[in-house]
Amino acid sequence: MKILALDSSGLVASVAVLEDENCIAEYTINYKKTHSQTLLPMLDEVSKMVDLDLNSIDAIAVAAGPGSFTGLRIGSATAKGLGQALNKPLIGIPTVDGLAYNLYGTDKVVCPLMDARRNQTYTGLYEFVRKENKYELRVIAAQCAVALEEIIDKINELGREVIFLGDGVPVFKAQLEEKVTVPFSFAPASCNRQRAAALGALALTYAEEGKMEAAASHMPDYLRLSQAERERNEELERGTHN
Amino acid sequence: MKILALDSSGLVASVAVLEDENCIAEYTINYKKTHSQTLLPMLDEVSKMVDLDLNSIDAIAVAAGPGSFTGLRIGSATAKGLGQALNKPLIGIPTVDGLAYNLYGTDKVVCPLMDARRNQTYTGLYEFVRKENKYELRVIAAQCAVALEEIIDKINELGREVIFLGDGVPVFKAQLEEKVTVPFSFAPASCNRQRAAALGALALTYAEEGKMEAAASHMPDYLRLSQAERERNEELERGTHN
Repeated sequence: MKILALDSSGLVASVAVLEDENCIAEYTINYKKTHSQTLLPMLDEVSKMVDLDLNSIDAIAVAAGPGSFTGLRIGSATAKGLGQALNKPLIGIPTVDGLAYNLYGTDKVVCPLMDARRNQTYTGLYEFVRKENKYELRVIAAQCAVALEEIIDKINELGREVIFLGDGVPVFKAQLEEKVTVPFSFAPASCNRQRAAALGALALTYAEEGKMEAAASHMPDYLRLSQAERERNEELERGTHN
Repeated sequence: MKILALDSSGLVASVAVLEDENCIAEYTINYKKTHSQTLLPMLDEVSKMVDLDLNSIDAIAVAAGPGSFTGLRIGSATAKGLGQALNKPLIGIPTVDGLAYNLYGTDKVVCPLMDARRNQTYTGLYEFVRKENKYELRVIAAQCAVALEEIIDKINELGREVIFLGDGVPVFKAQLEEKVTVPFSFAPASCNRQRAAALGALALTYAEEGKMEAAASHMPDYLRLSQAERERNEELERGTHN
């Protein structure tokens, strides 16, 4: 099973090609360029470097949300376009699950925190459970858009040691240090942001379970309304929409 | 602290740029090209993508061996050349330690296995120990070149669950499944080979401890003699060297 994986759900743009137990290529940048300037050029670069024939790919994995709305649309449009052109299925991976897979093999609870603005975080709680000679990612609390206090309450209730990662960490660090009552730590630079290889490795387990979809029917899961939709609804409620 | 990290110790070629908690860029390929065709072009590509001024780097981390002799020489020559031209220090990371850092945060024993040919493996045993809000890599058995049976004996004596990774896994899998008596598992594609970001994140902890060296004095640690040296010694012993 050969997978092309794309993640542009956050500031990071990441592209990887995996075949079973091998990551053939991974290219990740965390830099202030828009994904429309990076994602396809990076795929092109990687394809040339490893002589990749896109027709040899079995499926395209994509970070399916939540995340930056523009980022998700660029990732989704890229994956759908490639999928339809190449006639390959898509594997949509919940963004927060993909982030959690960075900490493969830990016995601690994994808590990705993405900065969702408006005093919210995209987050979830995860653990790894051994099954034969592999570890499986298990969802303790599914990804959601909540106030930081809400996920901190869940963590404190759970009472288990936790590792935090994601672009929410620098934003929420002071609050975490103040309010989390269980032992906790922060993931280092090598595994604290989106990585297409982690997404792709998780997607390989989805593929084994047949969790794929047609490229045409894939849609990102924003988890909440866009700013334009929210403002329109507020105007409709106030009767000021024209 | 900004670090450029290079790993060409095995089949993988990998380049990363890290600054404290951020991995700004990482580019890794595991493909049948020689590192002289990949490493510098990849660094050039990454530098352009993130507008990297090489003078802004504080240190250059390099996989310091063991590994492929040619790969180590290319990595070392590249790091030394850059370090001397830019007047920056080097941080040599034992290759097997760098590999182990892929499994940051696990409570299992980490056992990287590199195929060293001649019925040997470059290996070691590691664990992660929490210190304040981070995990530190601790060496249980330092990297070495040994017969597979030797490391399996150590693992069985230790009696703790272990996760294997590295290019030795596909080579030694059947023997591991037969002879390892503790619970064990294999790392997935996202974290089972050299990654410059893992090397670089570990190098950041070296830098904090001042473990740096002058570029001119860096030398790779091959852990054993090259084929040419070995054959020469054998000839000398037999008295057939001319």
